[in-house]
Amino acid sequence: MSYTGQLATYICESRPQDIPKDVRHEAKRALLNIVGCALGGAEHRAVDIAIEAIGPFSGPPTSAVLGRRERFDPLFAALLNGISTHVHDYDDTLPKNYIHASSPVAAALFAYASANKVAGADFLHAFILGFEVISRIGNATYPAHYLAGWHSTGSIGVFGAAIAVGKLQSLTSLQTANAIGLAATQSAGLREMFGSMAKSFHPGRSAQSGYMAALLAQKGFTAALLPLEGPRGFAAVQAGSYDFGKIVDSLGVRFELHDNTYKPFPSGLVIHPTIDACIQLRDKHNLTADQIASVQLRVAPLVKDLCNKKAISTGLEAKFSIYHAAAIGLGRGKGGLAEFTDEAANDPTLRALRDITDARVDPDIGEDAVAVSIRLKDGRGLGMKLEGSLGNLERPLSDAQLEAKFREQGTVISSTQMDEVIAACWNIEAVNDVANVIAACIPKGDRRASRSRQ
Amino acid sequence: MSYTGQLATYICESRPQDIPKDVRHEAKRALLNIVGCALGGAEHRAVDIAIEAIGPFSGPPTSAVLGRRERFDPLFAALLNGISTHVHDYDDTLPKNYIHASSPVAAALFAYASANKVAGADFLHAFILGFEVISRIGNATYPAHYLAGWHSTGSIGVFGAAIAVGKLQSLTSLQTANAIGLAATQSAGLREMFGSMAKSFHPGRSAQSGYMAALLAQKGFTAALLPLEGPRGFAAVQAGSYDFGKIVDSLGVRFELHDNTYKPFPSGLVIHPTIDACIQLRDKHNLTADQIASVQLRVAPLVKDLCNKKAISTGLEAKFSIYHAAAIGLGRGKGGLAEFTDEAANDPTLRALRDITDARVDPDIGEDAVAVSIRLKDGRGLGMKLEGSLGNLERPLSDAQLEAKFREQGTVISSTQMDEVIAACWNIEAVNDVANVIAACIPKGDRRASRSRQ
Repeated sequence: MSYTGQLATYICESRPQDIPKDVRHEAKRALLNIVGCALGGAEHRAVDIAIEAIGPFSGPPTSAVLGRRERFDPLFAALLNGISTHVHDYDDTLPKNYIHASSPVAAALFAYASANKVAGADFLHAFILGFEVISRIGNATYPAHYLAGWHSTGSIGVFGAAIAVGKLQSLTSLQTANAIGLAATQSAGLREMFGSMAKSFHPGRSAQSGYMAALLAQKGFTAALLPLEGPRGFAAVQAGSYDFGKIVDSLGVRFELHDNTYKPFPSGLVIHPTIDACIQLRDKHNLTADQIASVQLRVAPLVKDLCNKKAISTGLEAKFSIYHAAAIGLGRGKGGLAEFTDEAANDPTLRALRDITDARVDPDIGEDAVAVSIRLKDGRGLGMKLEGSLGNLERPLSDAQLEAKFREQGTVISSTQMDEVIAACWNIEAVNDVANVIAACIPKGDRRASRSRQ
Repeated sequence: MSYTGQLATYICESRPQDIPKDVRHEAKRALLNIVGCALGGAEHRAVDIAIEAIGPFSGPPTSAVLGRRERFDPLFAALLNGISTHVHDYDDTLPKNYIHASSPVAAALFAYASANKVAGADFLHAFILGFEVISRIGNATYPAHYLAGWHSTGSIGVFGAAIAVGKLQSLTSLQTANAIGLAATQSAGLREMFGSMAKSFHPGRSAQSGYMAALLAQKGFTAALLPLEGPRGFAAVQAGSYDFGKIVDSLGVRFELHDNTYKPFPSGLVIHPTIDACIQLRDKHNLTADQIASVQLRVAPLVKDLCNKKAISTGLEAKFSIYHAAAIGLGRGKGGLAEFTDEAANDPTLRALRDITDARVDPDIGEDAVAVSIRLKDGRGLGMKLEGSLGNLERPLSDAQLEAKFREQGTVISSTQMDEVIAACWNIEAVNDVANVIAACIPKGDRRASRSRQ
C-alpha cells in the first residue's frame, strides 16, 4: 500500500481509546497553550484587518471565533483562529522540524466544533491525529523542505487541518486520501513573509484550506492517488530530499506530541536562548542599559539566517530580531507580550541596545544555544554560554507554568471564564459539547470600544 | 526599485488607453474563448461537487457564476469560474511557459464584476494586466518552476487574479505590492494532480486566493517587501533558476497576449499534434479502426512525462493520454468534447486502439510535433510527421473558428444568448456594465432536471 494509503487507513481506523494516556495529557497541554494564544492574539490588528476585508463575504455565521464577539462561517472562522493563534509567535514548537503544529489543527477544529456538535474526547482525538500527521510529514521532509524556504507551519499544517476535520466527518480511507491530496495541492507559505502579517496568515489559510479539502473530499472531489510520494507530488516538488519511512514508522505506537515544546517568550524560537541568557546576566549582575558599551553574540547559522533584522519598527519584526532579543533581556529583564509590541520596537533604550549588539555566526554553537559577551562602559567584561533555553524538551514549562501563560494572554475574557476554560482543557474528555468551551472563550458584554492590541 | 516595486508601479499607472489596439483585440479573443470554456464546463461534476461541498458556506449571493443559475459570494464564484473554465482543458495556452493564463484571471474578474459595477473597458484592461503579469512571472521562472512539478496555471495564476482584482479596486502601489506578496505566499498546485478534478481546482483556488490577496491588501494587511525576489521569496523557493529581467523588460511596450494560443482539442496541449496527425491520416487513407494492427508514435520527452497514461477510465485521464489521442484521431476522426468523456474513455474501440499504440521518446521531435507510423492488418505501412499542430502560433484559430468553438461549448445557454455574448466580447469596450454580459451567460428557465455532463 502507498504511504498515503497507509496514512489514510491508520487515520480511519484509529479510535480515541487507542491513544495512550500520556499522549492525551500532552495534547491537553497543547490545547491549553493554543487556546491561550488564540485569546492573546484575537484582538491583533492582523485579525481586525482580515475581518474588515473578508468578513463581508462570510457565509451563515454558525461558528464563533476564539476571543472575538463576531460569528462567521466555519471556514472563515478557521482562518481567523489560525491568525490569532500564531500572530504573537507564542504557540508551540516541534524542535525536530520547527513546525508550530497546534495552530492550523486547532484553528480548524475549533471552527468545526463551534458549528457542529463534537464531544470532547473526539475533539482531542482528532487534534492528536492532525498534530501527528503534520509532524510526521514534517520529519519526512526535514530539513530539505524547511531549508528550501517553506514556512512549514503553513505548508505542512494544511495536512493536519484536513486530517483533523476529516476525522470528525468520519471520512472513508479513500476520502481521507483525497483530502490529503487536496491539502497537498494547496500547500503554501513562504519564509520570506517572516516579520509581516502574512506569517500568521499561513496557519490561518492552511486551516481554511485543509478544512475545505475535507469538505470537498467528503462529497467526492478527486485528487491524485499519490499526492505525497508521486513523481510530481508534495515531497518531490516541495522538498529536495525526504524519507517516507518517517511518515509511517511506528504509526499509532510512537506519538509526536512527546516532542512538542511551549514557548516562554512570544518570538521566533531561535532567539529564545539569547533572551534567556541576557535576562540571567542582567539579574546576576544587576545590570542597567546605560552601563553597557557593547554586546557580542555568537549564534548558530540558522539564527542569523532567520533573525538578522536590526533596523526594525514593528512588533512583528521584533520577533525575528536577534538584536532585539538581547536588548529586551538586558534592558527589561523579561520577554513578555509587552516586549514585542510596536512600542517596544521603537523604544529608544531598546533601539540603543540593539545598535550596540553584534551577532556572529559560530558553527560550534547549537540552534538552542548562545554565547553572550558584554563589554561594560567601566571596562569590565561579562559573559555566559547558554545551552538549552527555557521551554525546550529538557526544561519544559510545567502544567502550572502553562496555566500562568494562559492567564497572561487570556485577558480578553474574564478571570472566571479563564478558570472555566483551563478546567475544560484539562478535562476535555468529559466535555459533552466543545461548543460550550468555545462559548467560554468569547468576551462578554459590549466591549466594542476596546482598543486593538498592537 | 525592486522588481516587485517596478511591477506594482506599472500596474498602478497603466491606463486603458495605453494598451495597443492589437493587444486589446487579442484580449477579446481570449475572453471569448474563456467564456465559452466556462459555459462548457459549468455543469461538470467537479463544479457540482464543489457547490455541494462549499456552497453552504457561501456569503451573501452577490455574484453569478458563468453558466449556472446559482448565485454565491464573489470569492466562491471565482473558485467555481476557475474550475469550469479549466476542467475540459480547452482553455488558452502560452506555449512559452505552458500557462493557461486566462482561467484564473477571468474567473476572478467575472466574479468581481458580477458583484460590483465595472465598465467593459476597465474590465478588459484589468484582464490584460493580470494576463501580462502571469506570463511575465511565468517566463522569468520557466522552465525551472514548471519542471520542478508546479502546475503554473495555479501557482502563477494567483498573481494574475490578485493584479486584476486589485486594479479594479484601484489599489495603491504599496497595496499592490502587498497583494503580490499575499498572492506569492498562497502559490500552490502540483502537476501530480493531472488527470483528477484537483487540476481544475488549481486555477479556481488561485482565482479565489488572488482575489482574497487584493481584498486583504486593500485594508492594510502586510506581506514581505520582496515577495518575488527575496532570498526566501517565490522565485528562490519555487524555481531553481530564474531571470527577473523577464518580469520588467519592455513592460507596457511588448505584450504577452501576442503569444497566446487557443486549443482546438479539449486536452493537454502536448497531445494535440498526435490528434491532429491521426485525424489527417484517417481522412487521407479512409481508415477504420478495424484495419489497424499497430501504431507507433515518436514524441518529445515532455509528452511521455505528462501523458503516459494508457489504462484510463475517466474523461479527465483521457486528456492526458497520448494513447487516447491516437485512438480518437484514428477511431473517430475528431477530438471534441465528446471524445474526452468517461464514456469515450471506456469505449471498447478506443480502448483497443490505445492498447495497440506505443509511444517512444525521441529527443529530435519537438514538443509541438509527432511522428506517427501505422501498420495495417493487410501489411501496409502508413505514416507522417507533423510539426506545428492546429491552434499553435503559426496556425492560430481565426476569430470565426473561435466563435464556432464558443458555440460548440456554449449550449447551456440559448442560441440568442450566445449571439449576445459573442457580440459583447468583441465590443466589450462599449459595455457599460459587465454584469449585463454575465447575465447573458446564465441559463434561462428552470432546468434543474438537466443532466450533469461527465
